[in-house]
Amino acid sequence: MPATSLCQEECIPYSLMDDYSEGAHPQILEALLRTNSTQQVTYGNDEFSNAARHLIRDKIGCTEDEADIFFVPSGTSANLISIASCLRPYEAVITLDSGHIACKEAGAIEATGHKLILVPAVDGKMTPNNLQKAIQQNQFFPHMAKPRLLYISNASETGTVYTKRELTNLSAICKQQNLLLLMDGARIGTALASPKNDLTLQDIFQMTDIFWIGGTKAGALMGEAIVVKKALADGFVFHLKQHGALLAKGRILGVQFMELFRTDLFFKLASHANNMAQSISANFEQLGYRLAAETETNQVFVILPQPLVRNLLDRFRFYIWEQMDDGNSVVRLVTSWATDEMEVNKFNAWVQQWTVANN
Amino acid sequence: MPATSLCQEECIPYSLMDDYSEGAHPQILEALLRTNSTQQVTYGNDEFSNAARHLIRDKIGCTEDEADIFFVPSGTSANLISIASCLRPYEAVITLDSGHIACKEAGAIEATGHKLILVPAVDGKMTPNNLQKAIQQNQFFPHMAKPRLLYISNASETGTVYTKRELTNLSAICKQQNLLLLMDGARIGTALASPKNDLTLQDIFQMTDIFWIGGTKAGALMGEAIVVKKALADGFVFHLKQHGALLAKGRILGVQFMELFRTDLFFKLASHANNMAQSISANFEQLGYRLAAETETNQVFVILPQPLVRNLLDRFRFYIWEQMDDGNSVVRLVTSWATDEMEVNKFNAWVQQWTVANN
Amino acid sequence: MPATSLCQEECIPYSLMDDYSEGAHPQILEALLRTNSTQQVTYGNDEFSNAARHLIRDKIGCTEDEADIFFVPSGTSANLISIASCLRPYEAVITLDSGHIACKEAGAIEATGHKLILVPAVDGKMTPNNLQKAIQQNQFFPHMAKPRLLYISNASETGTVYTKRELTNLSAICKQQNLLLLMDGARIGTALASPKNDLTLQDIFQMTDIFWIGGTKAGALMGEAIVVKKALADGFVFHLKQHGALLAKGRILGVQFMELFRTDLFFKLASHANNMAQSISANFEQLGYRLAAETETNQVFVILPQPLVRNLLDRFRFYIWEQMDDGNSVVRLVTSWATDEMEVNKFNAWVQQWTVANN
Amino acid sequence: MPATSLCQEECIPYSLMDDYSEGAHPQILEALLRTNSTQQVTYGNDEFSNAARHLIRDKIGCTEDEADIFFVPSGTSANLISIASCLRPYEAVITLDSGHIACKEAGAIEATGHKLILVPAVDGKMTPNNLQKAIQQNQFFPHMAKPRLLYISNASETGTVYTKRELTNLSAICKQQNLLLLMDGARIGTALASPKNDLTLQDIFQMTDIFWIGGTKAGALMGEAIVVKKALADGFVFHLKQHGALLAKGRILGVQFMELFRTDLFFKLASHANNMAQSISANFEQLGYRLAAETETNQVFVILPQPLVRNLLDRFRFYIWEQMDDGNSVVRLVTSWATDEMEVNKFNAWVQQWTVANN
Repeated sequence: MPATSLCQEECIPYSLMDDYSEGAHPQILEALLRTNSTQQVTYGNDEFSNAARHLIRDKIGCTEDEADIFFVPSGTSANLISIASCLRPYEAVITLDSGHIACKEAGAIEATGHKLILVPAVDGKMTPNNLQKAIQQNQFFPHMAKPRLLYISNASETGTVYTKRELTNLSAICKQQNLLLLMDGARIGTALASPKNDLTLQDIFQMTDIFWIGGTKAGALMGEAIVVKKALADGFVFHLKQHGALLAKGRILGVQFMELFRTDLFFKLASHANNMAQSISANFEQLGYRLAAETETNQVFVILPQPLVRNLLDRFRFYIWEQMDDGNSVVRLVTSWATDEMEVNKFNAWVQQWTVANN
Repeated sequence: MPATSLCQEECIPYSLMDDYSEGAHPQILEALLRTNSTQQVTYGNDEFSNAARHLIRDKIGCTEDEADIFFVPSGTSANLISIASCLRPYEAVITLDSGHIACKEAGAIEATGHKLILVPAVDGKMTPNNLQKAIQQNQFFPHMAKPRLLYISNASETGTVYTKRELTNLSAICKQQNLLLLMDGARIGTALASPKNDLTLQDIFQMTDIFWIGGTKAGALMGEAIVVKKALADGFVFHLKQHGALLAKGRILGVQFMELFRTDLFFKLASHANNMAQSISANFEQLGYRLAAETETNQVFVILPQPLVRNLLDRFRFYIWEQMDDGNSVVRLVTSWATDEMEVNKFNAWVQQWTVANN
Repeated sequence: MPATSLCQEECIPYSLMDDYSEGAHPQILEALLRTNSTQQVTYGNDEFSNAARHLIRDKIGCTEDEADIFFVPSGTSANLISIASCLRPYEAVITLDSGHIACKEAGAIEATGHKLILVPAVDGKMTPNNLQKAIQQNQFFPHMAKPRLLYISNASETGTVYTKRELTNLSAICKQQNLLLLMDGARIGTALASPKNDLTLQDIFQMTDIFWIGGTKAGALMGEAIVVKKALADGFVFHLKQHGALLAKGRILGVQFMELFRTDLFFKLASHANNMAQSISANFEQLGYRLAAETETNQVFVILPQPLVRNLLDRFRFYIWEQMDDGNSVVRLVTSWATDEMEVNKFNAWVQQWTVANN
Repeated sequence: MPATSLCQEECIPYSLMDDYSEGAHPQILEALLRTNSTQQVTYGNDEFSNAARHLIRDKIGCTEDEADIFFVPSGTSANLISIASCLRPYEAVITLDSGHIACKEAGAIEATGHKLILVPAVDGKMTPNNLQKAIQQNQFFPHMAKPRLLYISNASETGTVYTKRELTNLSAICKQQNLLLLMDGARIGTALASPKNDLTLQDIFQMTDIFWIGGTKAGALMGEAIVVKKALADGFVFHLKQHGALLAKGRILGVQFMELFRTDLFFKLASHANNMAQSISANFEQLGYRLAAETETNQVFVILPQPLVRNLLDRFRFYIWEQMDDGNSVVRLVTSWATDEMEVNKFNAWVQQWTVANN
């Protein structure tokens, strides 16, 4: 939890806490305004939602017969609905112990009745070895719940991305072991825009059974687009309704995704977020600070001395991720589509100034 | 399900199907634009949500110590979270068999583990007699689930409203029988704006344990405000999170309710909807048609001959609620904050013209 | 709930309240003793359970490839596991409003997440018309939960039985409408032993998807045998485990069913129960009392004047099912495999004596 | 999973796989016979269940006002009902990652909606340090489920026991942190009969909120007695019913616990089991084999070379717990109230003979 403090003048500290502290990208608000007055069919069958589906399918390179697309208001909804829809009651989910569903969704998956099998992360990611081990250790049936779905996030919780090779390997194990593969794409935009990325949306569609494209952290007011392989889509819409995620005015989700994918807006915004993070990260490294994780997307994890942390907190808001035994802290800085380059420059200058003064 | 047909010209039939076919009232969109760029605390703790809470508490006449207010994206979310948060696993909900939770939410309440006890409606409403009878018939413990909460809607599913006397009676039984009272307020705006209404938000707050104020059908993009008596509010926010209803950008719900309650906008929009329904209803009655339910809010239920229905469907979209044995149909016409008075006038004129021509 | 009173002497009133007030038939206890010391594989894979499965399959006329058989400790377990195993989260169960799952199992089915759709009974039974109507009224998808399983009991809650023609009709509708058919057989023994019955276990197996054979009310200490068509059996055992119904010493259920089906014991005990009920019922009718339901199995529902009820309660325990407005009561008398013929004779004599004295 | 093989003659290998391969202790079967024919009140309110409750309360040293006692058919039922009854939907259970609920109950706890927070074991047990750490790491509310109950087993999964000091420490943390403490007592008999034990049933009752006394592994046909502090007992019986654990003939559980606690039978049988394990364990140690865990109750974990394992499997059945990298195996041998001393002697002799021959 962040320790915040006021700056000496009456300024409000600029937030680098997360990628959802602002509203929506102006183009998205404009699209909502532009489409506001027309009457539309409700519950997700409006023309804007259908247009958004069309645009997303185009990017994925698939037809209507291959994938269904559903829009939901939040990432937790996307995860719990995807999992509840695919699994029978005794089937379990394999996830990293740092997975969003494992420690940031208040037990949402268990609330739908499903067990999580926890696996340690390597660079924030699932590895084939750890996956295989988890599968092997959960075979004492019927005393153990049956592993049936692998949940991963791209970008990961620590901002790293899966390479094509890594995803190919995980996908192969899943197929071989009869596991479904679900990719949480809350930050799939920054993942795909990462310099380290070599995956396309087509690859992801082909290698997973369900994945979702995060809008909330990508410039929308809210909303995530779940892409479900046709074979798993039957009955999916009932789950949306049953979990309160089928909005009467589904159009407001459709319009936003239509706008994000009508042009390259979705990817441009992600690139901006990544660039801002790179800038912060590069500055830290240049000044001799050690990163706690590679900066591959829009999150910077850096190890800082307490006095610098305290000084930065006078002007910026961010999470102290971990207090280390040696008195240093791991600090997390998150950038977004909305991050102001001038604020980043100020941040970097401040770090530099403090560092020079204290060495 | 509606039978729709194209009109002779290339016009698109005007919809009187529901009160959520349009986007949001322009003032609400403006508020979203105005507040868009400021950075805010996330997950519902932003200044706009707090301002909206303050405004709603003012209308209710209560302090922060008396009620908590939570914003959720949909009515189904509001109902399932309210019920799941208050009940122990073996406790049941008493509802009308026509209640929204009973037949329009895909089993959302049962999906949280709770039984519904169904009671027949009188004029769309729960009566003290029917409530008492349901309680008495569900006392064979522990073989029967224990009745613990009464769910009602105001306005009701057929557009009728609860009078102060009616709500007082139900509330008294609930207190005496140790039942909680939950009011679904998806259309509470039109209920309070009804000529027949003699309840205030203060009354409702005092007589219920939880009620919610519908935004989706009242001019917002989406969103409902749940008002929970303090004694029941503990842990409520976990339920929001667990069910995917705690939006990262909670501000977008806060801003909308702030705008609805900053002035009398909420009530003005409801009055408009009611007036439009009154106009349609009065025209039908004047022309000798029989209403299937009193028009107390923004829904008109009227019995029409098939030929008239077919003719109207060329120009307007609406639900055929019931096919009667005598060949007539019960038709439902719904108006809203967005209903165009000119379209209503056209509708009324068309009805009149057909009636004259066919008698 | 029964009104009970002590008899004038220190006798304990003889119970005709239910068919599970005694322990087990002596042969069953002997079988438990006989098999007690041998070591067995656990969790239902022991030789006795397998032998019982073999015997039951013989009666059903099916092979191992056609049906799996699972033993569980209680009827509620049998129902909730069968339903939870077959249905997806948004699928609903159609049941009589008087069905055991609807009003005697504390919301056990809803606790697994599934909605019940209630249908009124005719002679305690589901009719094709009422079933069709329920299906038609629950088609507004995805706002309504999807009907997917028909639950019936044979014998019914009022002791009536389904004829071959009746079951054939229901089964045909289920197939046509893509509904599974589950028969609760808590009292299937007395149903099959009823003079009115023309169904065999083979018929029932062929016309249903799952049915269960009640042991608890048929002479066992406890235990029900669920017969599941092979296509639905996958994963069933996980549900047993997950719901606490997979006994470590599964043998104790296997041994009891082995003993019940090794000979005709199961059917003989059911016949005894039915005969005792017939004797009570015939006596009442002969004396001019009116039955509230046909006595087709081991339950007698009879309308009696209050003074007679009071007198009987001095010597016997039974449920007063309903207080009628005219001062009479509907009384339920249940017989079982253990019912003592001498007590029945005393009961009948007492009724006769009182009737003569009071007319 | 055990590798079993036939012995050279036609003998069936003697099982040391678990403590539930036999039926019930003869005295228990006699008690069932003795009480069989009397009519009893159903669903756990019979005189035998009440007598058993009285006897257990006597051992615990508490009155009816301090604790309620419920009998259920299985350990999984005991755990899932206890947890579901005490926790609100967003509350989580802290358990060892080797806990029975974590890896041997097919996700039964998650199926009731509750998250498990996993903690590594030390000597098979929860330590104050690990508990505190788990609590601290799960405070990011409402994004994390709220820790609310600590689940431990005594004896533990590896047969170790909690000392009075250890339980006192855990209990103190629970009180301080507002956690309930649930003790799974599937093997509480052998724990209390352990030479290492210094706890009494009174201690356990006072230091926990709920604990249960295992009958299945202690000589009963089946059945566990849940002891619930009065403050938590409200509504408990509904949970029994709802989960299929409220047996119609509750008497059969009552009679068995009455017989176990009428005399010291429960403790005597546990002592026998422990003694048999001690004999096996001592023999191994004397012959120079290394134990993988201290033999404190009725389970022996020993590291054996493959050739010895193969030889033993010709005559005995047992689990190979773990294949070690060095080619040795960890073997688990379980004794029980029913373990034949002659078979244990044969086992020990066989180990000795092989060891001598192969050194």
